[in-house]
Amino acid sequence: MINVVKIGGNVVDNAPALEKFCRDFAALDGPKVLVHGGGVMASDMQRSMGMAPVMVEGRRVTDKDTLRIVTMVYAGWCNKHIVSLLQANGCNAIGLAGCDGNVIQARRRAPKLLSDGVTEMDYGHVGDVRKEGVNRDFILGLVESGLVPVLCAINHDGRGGLLNTNADTIASAISSSINAKLLYCFEKNGVLCNINDETSVIPLITSRDFAVLKSDKVIGNGMLPKLENAFKALEEGTAEVVIKNSSDLLSEEAGTKIVL
Amino acid sequence: MINVVKIGGNVVDNAPALEKFCRDFAALDGPKVLVHGGGVMASDMQRSMGMAPVMVEGRRVTDKDTLRIVTMVYAGWCNKHIVSLLQANGCNAIGLAGCDGNVIQARRRAPKLLSDGVTEMDYGHVGDVRKEGVNRDFILGLVESGLVPVLCAINHDGRGGLLNTNADTIASAISSSINAKLLYCFEKNGVLCNINDETSVIPLITSRDFAVLKSDKVIGNGMLPKLENAFKALEEGTAEVVIKNSSDLLSEEAGTKIVL
Repeated sequence: MINVVKIGGNVVDNAPALEKFCRDFAALDGPKVLVHGGGVMASDMQRSMGMAPVMVEGRRVTDKDTLRIVTMVYAGWCNKHIVSLLQANGCNAIGLAGCDGNVIQARRRAPKLLSDGVTEMDYGHVGDVRKEGVNRDFILGLVESGLVPVLCAINHDGRGGLLNTNADTIASAISSSINAKLLYCFEKNGVLCNINDETSVIPLITSRDFAVLKSDKVIGNGMLPKLENAFKALEEGTAEVVIKNSSDLLSEEAGTKIVL
Repeated sequence: MINVVKIGGNVVDNAPALEKFCRDFAALDGPKVLVHGGGVMASDMQRSMGMAPVMVEGRRVTDKDTLRIVTMVYAGWCNKHIVSLLQANGCNAIGLAGCDGNVIQARRRAPKLLSDGVTEMDYGHVGDVRKEGVNRDFILGLVESGLVPVLCAINHDGRGGLLNTNADTIASAISSSINAKLLYCFEKNGVLCNINDETSVIPLITSRDFAVLKSDKVIGNGMLPKLENAFKALEEGTAEVVIKNSSDLLSEEAGTKIVL
């Protein structure tokens, strides 16, 4: 089975963590795909150019200048830096944005009501990705030829426009499209019962467990979208989801396994 | 025969010119590869971050911060912007830096004596590319599968390091490696007898002509490295070289043809 691994800013923005992760990822057996974020670095870049990052409900408001910056940071520095580290570890990686080989087509998000039900928000050059927008044959073709696709969260609309999308969503759309195992790697050891105790990892969460954990408010707000994304991925064709610490990539037992 | 087309900053940094070029390039018959620069934009980005671009004998001195910026600009914004425009024109482009699929491996330039014969110059993260560093099979495989590789001038050393290289050299190393036709597109109509007269295009230059033109000082300093590069490419396996205006891409007669 193909592994689709997602890493976020805590790895991408931290040189020793990224080097260790790339060694581990190169050593991961079998066919694989990597999806990466880079949001902290994009915010730093915006600030160093005198711009203030604007985040609304977890998404970056992306005007024309911001689009240029996130494209430079995600598709340029982060992507090529990761690919060159993987190559140095003997992993034949190929970096891709959605426009490359038309691997992912996104749809620009229409202005939408925020959770207050009142404010209408236009996020600018922000796109949403669905499983149907993933070029399954192209990804499978690359993987079959021994390449390891490394995707950033920049996609295109097919009409010449680039769009800033969400790396978690890209990872789940890809794994659903190719029926892969999805590994969400982040800075915690898994889904925790007690957010302050890294040993309190819940080893398995079913959709029934999730409903209970949610109503009991055991799961923190930061974790909810990740879990919702995980269940959506399973419903749409992903074979298995694991949420784990990026430093435990090679440990089969680590993290929280999510099943329907 | 495969066409390898090189465009420089005059196209990449000019939105209407780039849009026209992408339409034309998409319409160009047969298998093809694009190599692009982006130097003006990289210098602008350096200045907007409070850094002063340093060029010595035509090459950018590339310290760690500069490497990050050129990688962001060339492999990020320029590359993905061009690929998305090509996709919108029905051309199945795939953007690549040298690390992607290990398509080009460069060698870091050792400190070297400048033309004054005295000053030793360390360019930093600058690489040189030779025909032997080009992954010929990978490029041919992409082209045979109907993809159009679009390469920027960022390459890798195979040990995890990225290197800033020269787009003209990359184009000639690729065309030599795959025995392609090489089209250098720039802002002039070709090699001119009189640099102030765009109608004074020399239609054909042989190596014998070149020696005479050089000794008669007909050819300007800006043009000399391009022509030297062209002859080197022909000696190393490139089938044909044409130097022409980027707006004349589709005109078979336009520009200066270079032959041995």
